[in-house]
Amino acid sequence: MRIEILCTGDEILTGKTVNTNYSYIATRLVEFGLGVHWGTTVGDDRESLLLAFRQAAERADAVIVNGGLGPTVDDLSQEVAAQAAGVPLVLHEPWLARMESFYARRNRVMPANNRKQAMLPEGAEFIDNPIGTACGFAVDVGKTRFYFTPGVPREMRRMVDEQIIPRLLARAGMRQATRLKRFHSFGIGESRADELLAGIEAMAPDGRVKLGFQSHYPQLETKLAARGADQTEIDRMLAPIEAEVRRRLGNFILAEDGATPESVVLEALRAQGGTLALAETLTGGGIAARLAPLPGAEALFRRGLVARDLGQLRNALGLPETDGAAVSPALATEAATALCARSGASHALAVLIALDDGPDRMETGGTICIGIADARGSVSREARLLGGREWVRLGAMELGLDCLRRRLLGLPVDERIDFERR
Amino acid sequence: MRIEILCTGDEILTGKTVNTNYSYIATRLVEFGLGVHWGTTVGDDRESLLLAFRQAAERADAVIVNGGLGPTVDDLSQEVAAQAAGVPLVLHEPWLARMESFYARRNRVMPANNRKQAMLPEGAEFIDNPIGTACGFAVDVGKTRFYFTPGVPREMRRMVDEQIIPRLLARAGMRQATRLKRFHSFGIGESRADELLAGIEAMAPDGRVKLGFQSHYPQLETKLAARGADQTEIDRMLAPIEAEVRRRLGNFILAEDGATPESVVLEALRAQGGTLALAETLTGGGIAARLAPLPGAEALFRRGLVARDLGQLRNALGLPETDGAAVSPALATEAATALCARSGASHALAVLIALDDGPDRMETGGTICIGIADARGSVSREARLLGGREWVRLGAMELGLDCLRRRLLGLPVDERIDFERR
Repeated sequence: MRIEILCTGDEILTGKTVNTNYSYIATRLVEFGLGVHWGTTVGDDRESLLLAFRQAAERADAVIVNGGLGPTVDDLSQEVAAQAAGVPLVLHEPWLARMESFYARRNRVMPANNRKQAMLPEGAEFIDNPIGTACGFAVDVGKTRFYFTPGVPREMRRMVDEQIIPRLLARAGMRQATRLKRFHSFGIGESRADELLAGIEAMAPDGRVKLGFQSHYPQLETKLAARGADQTEIDRMLAPIEAEVRRRLGNFILAEDGATPESVVLEALRAQGGTLALAETLTGGGIAARLAPLPGAEALFRRGLVARDLGQLRNALGLPETDGAAVSPALATEAATALCARSGASHALAVLIALDDGPDRMETGGTICIGIADARGSVSREARLLGGREWVRLGAMELGLDCLRRRLLGLPVDERIDFERR
Repeated sequence: MRIEILCTGDEILTGKTVNTNYSYIATRLVEFGLGVHWGTTVGDDRESLLLAFRQAAERADAVIVNGGLGPTVDDLSQEVAAQAAGVPLVLHEPWLARMESFYARRNRVMPANNRKQAMLPEGAEFIDNPIGTACGFAVDVGKTRFYFTPGVPREMRRMVDEQIIPRLLARAGMRQATRLKRFHSFGIGESRADELLAGIEAMAPDGRVKLGFQSHYPQLETKLAARGADQTEIDRMLAPIEAEVRRRLGNFILAEDGATPESVVLEALRAQGGTLALAETLTGGGIAARLAPLPGAEALFRRGLVARDLGQLRNALGLPETDGAAVSPALATEAATALCARSGASHALAVLIALDDGPDRMETGGTICIGIADARGSVSREARLLGGREWVRLGAMELGLDCLRRRLLGLPVDERIDFERR
């Protein structure tokens, strides 16, 4: 089945907004084995839209249209869809009632121009939008099915995941209930993950589970896109596969689905009634910047210290400045221990980096020393990463967070990662 | 003139890579008054590419094609361009020689498949790529001119700016030398900037300077896109206009062109032989994270402290913990002064935030107290921002950096900004 994506709107066409809606839709189509054949972008312009609909109808079996469903005069999708389908626009009474009650619940009167959002091409299939005033719909232009989604990203995402993908799977004769299961890992490269997970897809019948990866250094996302008759069947089918992925990727899995290593660390701290202090060199406080804005972090995150110079670090922590010590695992645990004592936090993490001298090249590396202190004592980890300064910096932040996660969860802190050189 | 953008490549089509190249090209076209009429995305697939070329040739006067110029078998742009234009591919000897010397300078032998990158459609206009092995070219398909650019963003950007835009301007009968002048400001909203700069475009003849804005809160970018016969003419034309923009936007201009408030602050510190220490609450160390990774920052950035709790802040700075003091301008200057003393830095900036209680809504605000200490003494600034927690956090970071910039440059620190509520 040939599927196209058609994005409308002047903001997208003129580049003022980067088209992340397109990538979201395309990624989902690929994940569920549907694929994507063509992408078109046009502005809020009647002539272009009509031509785009007609040309897409000649090329594709199905088209997902994004944008142009708003209440203003430059939102033309319903109108041009009706024109392309050769039918009039008719009022969809239930949606008008839904919008009116939506406004009524907020003690407001619905503006008159919102009525336009309930005008759909005659005979169109209604597609619900549970979180906005722009409903979706589907209509045929020639032999091609067009699915209309709003431009607001969170509305579009929910409709694509819950309603459009299942409809497309049905059209392609595939099972329609879907689920996307995600694992976030650190320390395993994409090619090794691919090797480690060989044969995983074959655990489900008829290619109903597709394995995919998305690498965003230093993390790797491993995805299982599952299709089934319903969620219960998917549950049954996925459970042993998920367990097997967890077994094979092991301690390298940082978090699953919407969780992040930051949220996992905060959750573990909360569960243990703990609090946290951080000391960072060279990461510019990047670990603190990831943790501190999270919901509930204020109660757990005590203090962060950033310094490039070890003398500053020692001074701020009240450590003796006698030895001209370099970055070492011993200094990292010393810093973490002092940080616990001074801040009163139950856990402290120190991430120290000694970066290679010279110009910044792909071969530039850094030695990372991590120290963690808590009521049980202290632990350290040393690693050498390559790939230029920014790469080392990103790797060091992730390694620091990961060591803390491992310490909190009782996992080994010193497990070799793929990015490491010894 | 109708201009289209055609992006090729499976990574883009399948959504694995967000198409920022498209937005870059479209933004440039709009900035120089050329506009963009249509966008197409296809994969590394001969049939789709050929159809996309033919359909674009029917719709447009000019097409910018991006991607598909690499050395591997899935890079098909030259080949399909030749097919669409109805001409054979021929070797472009000078480019082959350039590539060979490029490899020779690096003591490497050019791989055989790179030769493919010197094969251009017969009669094509060669377009130089000064920083890569994929040269560009232009060729006619029917009455439409197609311009080919590589997918590597920095190569594409340079070619679009220096070579494609001038050619399109020439084709549109407009002057061909171009320059984009950019001003980054903080504290003026887009609509007020638009008012303040009324009549600026009219200072240049024949619409040769176009004014544009790009808002990325909390900064606003003001752009002057200039066209002229040559750079000397543009120099002469722009000088009084730039001066007028500087006069009207005044102290709110943070930086120009490639500079940022961070780089301006570091440059001013360097010029004064100064060093810096920071204390932040609630921004999660976000100011430190912006400053610390910059080139040369290690020599100037002494220490950063992050704490949500004022008790932690006082403890870390050795301030008396007697009064249960709230966030105040006095506490901010006290913190900055203590920070100078303890870190030995010549300048210290403290950014303290008291955030409204309750759920995070658009109306949620925060009171921001900024203290700066240096050899001249100390200064403070208080402001109230609204718009939800993240908005307040971003605004506070920018306001802190801006106050430091103003102090370092001898400008008034207490100038009211548009985002402020009193």
